[in-house]
Amino acid sequence: MRTWQAYLEENGERFLHELKDFLHIPSISALPEYAGDVQEAAKWVAARLRAAGIENVEILPTGGHPVVYGDWLHAPGKLTVLIYGHFDTQPVDPLELWTRPPFEPAIVEGRIYARGATDNKGNMLTPILAAEALLRTEGALPVNVKFFLEGQEEIGSPQMAAFVAGQREKLACDMVFSADTVQWSEDQPSVLLSWKGLCGLQIDVQASRTDLHSGAAGGTFQNPIHALAYLIASMRAQDGRILVDGFYDDVLPLSAEEREQLAQLPYSDLEYKRSIGLPAELDLFGEPGYTTLERAGVRPTLDVNGIWGGFQGEGIKTIIPSRAHAKLTCRLVADQDPERIMRLIEAHIGKHTPPGVQVKVTRHSSGVKAYRMPADHPGNQAASQVLEEVYGKVPYYTRRGGTLPVSPLFLEQLGAYTVSMAFSLPDENTHAPDEFFRLSSFARGQQAYCMVLHKLAEK
Amino acid sequence: MRTWQAYLEENGERFLHELKDFLHIPSISALPEYAGDVQEAAKWVAARLRAAGIENVEILPTGGHPVVYGDWLHAPGKLTVLIYGHFDTQPVDPLELWTRPPFEPAIVEGRIYARGATDNKGNMLTPILAAEALLRTEGALPVNVKFFLEGQEEIGSPQMAAFVAGQREKLACDMVFSADTVQWSEDQPSVLLSWKGLCGLQIDVQASRTDLHSGAAGGTFQNPIHALAYLIASMRAQDGRILVDGFYDDVLPLSAEEREQLAQLPYSDLEYKRSIGLPAELDLFGEPGYTTLERAGVRPTLDVNGIWGGFQGEGIKTIIPSRAHAKLTCRLVADQDPERIMRLIEAHIGKHTPPGVQVKVTRHSSGVKAYRMPADHPGNQAASQVLEEVYGKVPYYTRRGGTLPVSPLFLEQLGAYTVSMAFSLPDENTHAPDEFFRLSSFARGQQAYCMVLHKLAEK
Repeated sequence: MRTWQAYLEENGERFLHELKDFLHIPSISALPEYAGDVQEAAKWVAARLRAAGIENVEILPTGGHPVVYGDWLHAPGKLTVLIYGHFDTQPVDPLELWTRPPFEPAIVEGRIYARGATDNKGNMLTPILAAEALLRTEGALPVNVKFFLEGQEEIGSPQMAAFVAGQREKLACDMVFSADTVQWSEDQPSVLLSWKGLCGLQIDVQASRTDLHSGAAGGTFQNPIHALAYLIASMRAQDGRILVDGFYDDVLPLSAEEREQLAQLPYSDLEYKRSIGLPAELDLFGEPGYTTLERAGVRPTLDVNGIWGGFQGEGIKTIIPSRAHAKLTCRLVADQDPERIMRLIEAHIGKHTPPGVQVKVTRHSSGVKAYRMPADHPGNQAASQVLEEVYGKVPYYTRRGGTLPVSPLFLEQLGAYTVSMAFSLPDENTHAPDEFFRLSSFARGQQAYCMVLHKLAEK
Repeated sequence: MRTWQAYLEENGERFLHELKDFLHIPSISALPEYAGDVQEAAKWVAARLRAAGIENVEILPTGGHPVVYGDWLHAPGKLTVLIYGHFDTQPVDPLELWTRPPFEPAIVEGRIYARGATDNKGNMLTPILAAEALLRTEGALPVNVKFFLEGQEEIGSPQMAAFVAGQREKLACDMVFSADTVQWSEDQPSVLLSWKGLCGLQIDVQASRTDLHSGAAGGTFQNPIHALAYLIASMRAQDGRILVDGFYDDVLPLSAEEREQLAQLPYSDLEYKRSIGLPAELDLFGEPGYTTLERAGVRPTLDVNGIWGGFQGEGIKTIIPSRAHAKLTCRLVADQDPERIMRLIEAHIGKHTPPGVQVKVTRHSSGVKAYRMPADHPGNQAASQVLEEVYGKVPYYTRRGGTLPVSPLFLEQLGAYTVSMAFSLPDENTHAPDEFFRLSSFARGQQAYCMVLHKLAEK
C-alpha cells in the first residue's frame, strides 16, 4: 500500500498549483464589491472538498458570506472532529506598498506571496489535502471529520452566531481543530491557549453642511477634526492606559503562573522591533505594568484603525472640513463582554464630545468574545505530541492577541473547545502588504494533519 | 459718443460667454497635474487684456505659476493704479458634493456655477471689461492703470515675494485696487480694512514600517493616529484658546473703537449658523472673550484642514497603521510673524510628541503676513463714494479672516496700500462645492470699476 507520506510527496507540485488557483480569487469579505468573489471562493472550496473524497459537501447560506460544509463519518466509535478554516481575505490597501499585485500569487525563494497566502488559504487547504492523502492511500479517515470553512472571518464573522446556533446538530462534534493560527517560529512549535475578543465602532463627526473657507469661517465654529482628535485623545492616557470608564472592570487578572509561562518564552524587544520595522531609536509602548508579551497576548487594547476628514491632497487647501471620521477596534480578553464594552465607549463619547459638533457612533456587528481553553485538553495533547514529532521540540504554550470569532461560539453552542493547529509564522505580513506563506509550512501542515487525525483515533 | 454704460449693456451677453470660457479652464494651483491649465488660464487672460486695448501685455515667469502683466499709461499727471486679481482656483474635492461638474459652468437663476466663479475669475474679469468699455467709448482711461494678475493666490503666492521685489520699477504705483474680495450683502456694500495672514504645516507621524495586524501588534507600540490625535488635541484648549506657547505674544489688542465698529455691524448668530448649515441645536464655538465677528475678523486661528491615516474603506480592517498625517493652517493677525508662528508650532510639536513615534513637520512656504490699512486712505474714499452711488447706502467698514498674500507685499515693496473693491458675497460657496457668482454682481463690478477709475482721476 502506498503511504500518505508518499502521496503527499508525489502530489506536492499539483497541490501548489491548486493553492495558486485559490489565491487568484480576490475574496475580500470587507468590501461589498467583492461579495461575488467570496462566493466564487466558496465554490472553489466545495469542489476541492469533493475532489478530496469528502461527502455531503454543501455551500450553506448565512445571510452574509457563505459557509462550506462537508463530512466523512465512517469511523464508528471514534471521535468526531470539526475542522475550521476561512476562505475570505483582508482588503489590500495600501496597494502601492505591495511588490506584486496581491491576487497574482508568485513563488519566490520558497515562499508564496499573495493576499490570503498565510491567512488563511494556505493553511486552510492543508487538512483537505491531508484528508485526500489518507482516503486515497488508506481508504478511510482514522476519525470522523466535519469541515466547516467560512467566508466572513476577516469581518468578525457577523452571521456565524446565528448560523452555528441554527446548525447545532449538523455541526455536533467532540472538538474543533482550527487551521487558522500560527506557530512560534520556523523551528519552534507552540500551542495556543487563548485568543482575544473584538469589537469595532465607527465615529462620524459633523458640524457645517459643507467644507468652509478657513479664512471666512475659521474661529467661528467647532472644527470636526479637532473634535475627533479630542475624543480619541480622551480615550487613552499618555502612558497607554485606556481611560474609558469601566473598560478594565471584567478583565481576569493574570495569574502568577500565566505570567511565568509568558516570561519563559524566548523574546527580545530589539528583535521584535526589528521584525515590525520600528526604528531602533523608538521605544515600544503600551499599558504600564505589563511586559510586551503580556500586552500583546492577554491585556485588552483600544486602537484607531483609520482616520480621515478634509483635504488629503498635495499642497494646501484652507478649509474647515464639514466632517471627520475614525474607525476604532478593541481587542478584548476574558471576561470582557463586547456588547458592554461598546456601550462603555459610546457613553465615553457621549460624555466627552466637545461643544459644537454632532457625533454619530455606529457599531460594527455585535463583536466577539475572548476565548480560553485548558492546557491539558485531549486535543491539545494530541496536537502537542504531533508538533513535537514534526519539530523535534516540545511546543510552547502561548496566548495571542488575535481573534478567532468562532471559537467562543463553538464552545457555547457545541460544547466543543477549539484546538489550534496551523503553520503561519509571525513574519508573514498577515493583514499587511506582501503577505506570504512558506512552502515548507504548507507541506508541514499537510503532514501534521495526517498525523493528528491518526493520533486522535487513539483517544 | 456712446457711453461706457451703453457699451457694458450692449456687450453683456458676450462678456458672459467669455466668463464661461474662462471658467472651463481647471486652473487649480495646488495640484501639480494642473500646472498646464494654470498656464492655459494665463494665456487666456493675456489675450483678453490685449483684446481690451491694454498694452505691454506679458506672461511673466515667477519660478512657479506665472503672473500676467499689462498696462495703459497715457494719463500724465494722473494717479497710477495697479489692479490685482488671480486666475488660479482652489481644488474641487469633495467632488461628489458638487451638483454639476465644477469646470462645466452652468447659469441657473441668475447665478453662474463653477469652481472659480466668485473666487476669483468672475471678479477678476470686471476691471478688464471696464477698461475695455472706457477705451472703446472714451478713447482713454481716466488714470494710469497697470494690471497684475497672478496664478498662485490659492496656494499662498509662494513666489510673489521674490517676484514683486524683483519688479519694483515695473509695478510702481500710487495704490493697488484688489478685485479679489467680498461685499457685505446683496444690498449693503462694505470696505475692508484688514486681512489675516496665513501659515501652513504638514505633520507626518510614523511608527512601524508597514501597517500591522492589530491582534498581533496591538498594545506593543504607539499607534500613529493616537499620537497625532494627542498632538492636535494639545494645540487647542477645550474652550478654543490656542495653547501653542507664545502664539498670542505679538497679537495687537483690539481697540475699543474697533470692537465698537464690529459690534455695529448687523449680524445674527442664528442667521450665520443657517448660512453655514450648522444644525440649529449646535452652538457656534471659538476663543472665549470674543464675539463671533471678532473671532472671524481679528483674532488668530489654528485649524486642521485635513487628516488621514490607516483604513478608510467600508467595513472593518483590524490594523495598526504605519503612518498618520494632518495638514494645519493658522490665520494670523497683526503683528504676528508667520515664520515665528511656524517655529512656535514646531517647538510645540517637538515638546508634545508622545513616545514611540517619529514626527516630521513640513512647512508650506514661508507664510503670509496679516494686512491692515487706514480707513481714510484716498483709495478707500474713492471706493466708498462709488459703492454708495451703486448701492444707495453708506458702506460698512469691516475686517476679514481671509488672506490676500500680495497686500502686505505691495505695501512693503511698493509702498502702496491695497484697496478692496470686488463683488463676491458670503454665501457663494467660496472654496466649497457648488461655488457660484451672481450675474448681477458681475455687471455691478464692471460698472463700479468704470466709476472708480473716473473718481480716482479727481485725486
